[in-house]
Amino acid sequence: MNRQKTISHEINLTVPFYDLDPMQIVWHGNYMNYFEDARAALFRSAGISLYDFYEKSGIVFPVIKTSTKHIFPLRYRDEAVCRATLVEADYKIVVDFEIRLASDGKICTRGRTEQVAVKAPGMELLYSVPDEIKSLLGSSA
Amino acid sequence: MNRQKTISHEINLTVPFYDLDPMQIVWHGNYMNYFEDARAALFRSAGISLYDFYEKSGIVFPVIKTSTKHIFPLRYRDEAVCRATLVEADYKIVVDFEIRLASDGKICTRGRTEQVAVKAPGMELLYSVPDEIKSLLGSSA
Amino acid sequence: MNRQKTISHEINLTVPFYDLDPMQIVWHGNYMNYFEDARAALFRSAGISLYDFYEKSGIVFPVIKTSTKHIFPLRYRDEAVCRATLVEADYKIVVDFEIRLASDGKICTRGRTEQVAVKAPGMELLYSVPDEIKSLLGSSA
Amino acid sequence: MNRQKTISHEINLTVPFYDLDPMQIVWHGNYMNYFEDARAALFRSAGISLYDFYEKSGIVFPVIKTSTKHIFPLRYRDEAVCRATLVEADYKIVVDFEIRLASDGKICTRGRTEQVAVKAPGMELLYSVPDEIKSLLGSSA
Repeated sequence: MNRQKTISHEINLTVPFYDLDPMQIVWHGNYMNYFEDARAALFRSAGISLYDFYEKSGIVFPVIKTSTKHIFPLRYRDEAVCRATLVEADYKIVVDFEIRLASDGKICTRGRTEQVAVKAPGMELLYSVPDEIKSLLGSSA
Repeated sequence: MNRQKTISHEINLTVPFYDLDPMQIVWHGNYMNYFEDARAALFRSAGISLYDFYEKSGIVFPVIKTSTKHIFPLRYRDEAVCRATLVEADYKIVVDFEIRLASDGKICTRGRTEQVAVKAPGMELLYSVPDEIKSLLGSSA
Repeated sequence: MNRQKTISHEINLTVPFYDLDPMQIVWHGNYMNYFEDARAALFRSAGISLYDFYEKSGIVFPVIKTSTKHIFPLRYRDEAVCRATLVEADYKIVVDFEIRLASDGKICTRGRTEQVAVKAPGMELLYSVPDEIKSLLGSSA
Repeated sequence: MNRQKTISHEINLTVPFYDLDPMQIVWHGNYMNYFEDARAALFRSAGISLYDFYEKSGIVFPVIKTSTKHIFPLRYRDEAVCRATLVEADYKIVVDFEIRLASDGKICTRGRTEQVAVKAPGMELLYSVPDEIKSLLGSSA
């Protein structure tokens, strides 16, 4: 049986000047930073640092897929909430993202990232997320 | 009848130091820069600058969707080719991307961006790409 | 007589993954982001937004000089404090920066930025910071 | 006797969209990227890769000081030349930078970076640039 807690975590962010483009909105590529921050905070809330795990195990978790949907643009100094929700931690680690304005909850951005476990330095694909990570994320084989 | 030339354009790139992450590979978010460069070159090859078009018309083309697939990581000083191919320029501007190693043609990354036409400053959605852009991109209504 | 309050402001920061380089430390160029965040917070604490001022006056404050000194590198997830201190707001706006580790106060980085007032779009140099900004920053002619 | 060839190298660059700020000019922090690209090309022209040197020796060359002077702003699609000139490769590696518009040679930016040799992972300061690097850069003790 494959069971998983719903793991979700939110971070607050304020749009910095250097994330804006000449159209006065956040350049689409910079949303990946917000996702990264939220994903790291999600893992941390579950007691996981993929960075530390790499240092002890040599296993890295490269992002193999991303998608974003931009519904409403963020502007300078906008205060927003980025929620990361774990979707899967079995063969891959899949995380969904949603960015809302802090003021009125308007949804601005949605996204997803997928990561696989790979053994460095040869980058050999492991066909499953390591058990230690899985159990902290609440999956059971 | 809806007809469109196949418009495609390639740029060369060499991976800079500041695009790398601690795992010695290009951080996934930085591929959006390569896509941006290739898309701008694609438009330029068709005689279009969306930036200039904005200055004269007040119409901007925000990216509303992106997706990436990372097949093989780029590393420091890798020489690569990023090809941008126009998929649609009707309701939206849709462009596909493919990044290959220059040395052996190995496919590293695939991606897509979608843009809509919006009238600044109120950001009112136009339900079609302006005719001037369409005709330069080879679409016919 | 030329008098000025000592205006100083601190922000907290946590080093994100995407600011690191392959040597596992923050890439030197990314410290400019931390300075920008601290400078914006400093101005905000004095009731100033240079961004809003530009929108109403057409006057911008481009950075014309920067310097940094890197004493101790920041690493992933380091918690640090960046203090911005106003040095001058007369002919130029000069701000000094100091980044310390939150844990033990170790000094990591020092820096300075200098900005001048310029009238857009022709970018004509104004030889003084506008009075409204000066008075909020506590300078008196 | 301390002798050194004048080592200088130029790269061409075209300003990308994502380096611009809301004032339609290159954000000051992004000039560090242009300097990095020019410095790497300078070393490469002398047969040096500090990245490869690190991999075989464990010696890294962190930037300990930077300075920039912004004379004329770069804008979207500006074509520019960034020249890097070696100033010293003895105790430190010091490189000067100058960015000019390709069209008319107008000077836009000047800068300098200083790097020291440090032994990873303990980051112990070496009080001199390693001989192998020095000799490739043309210094003689």
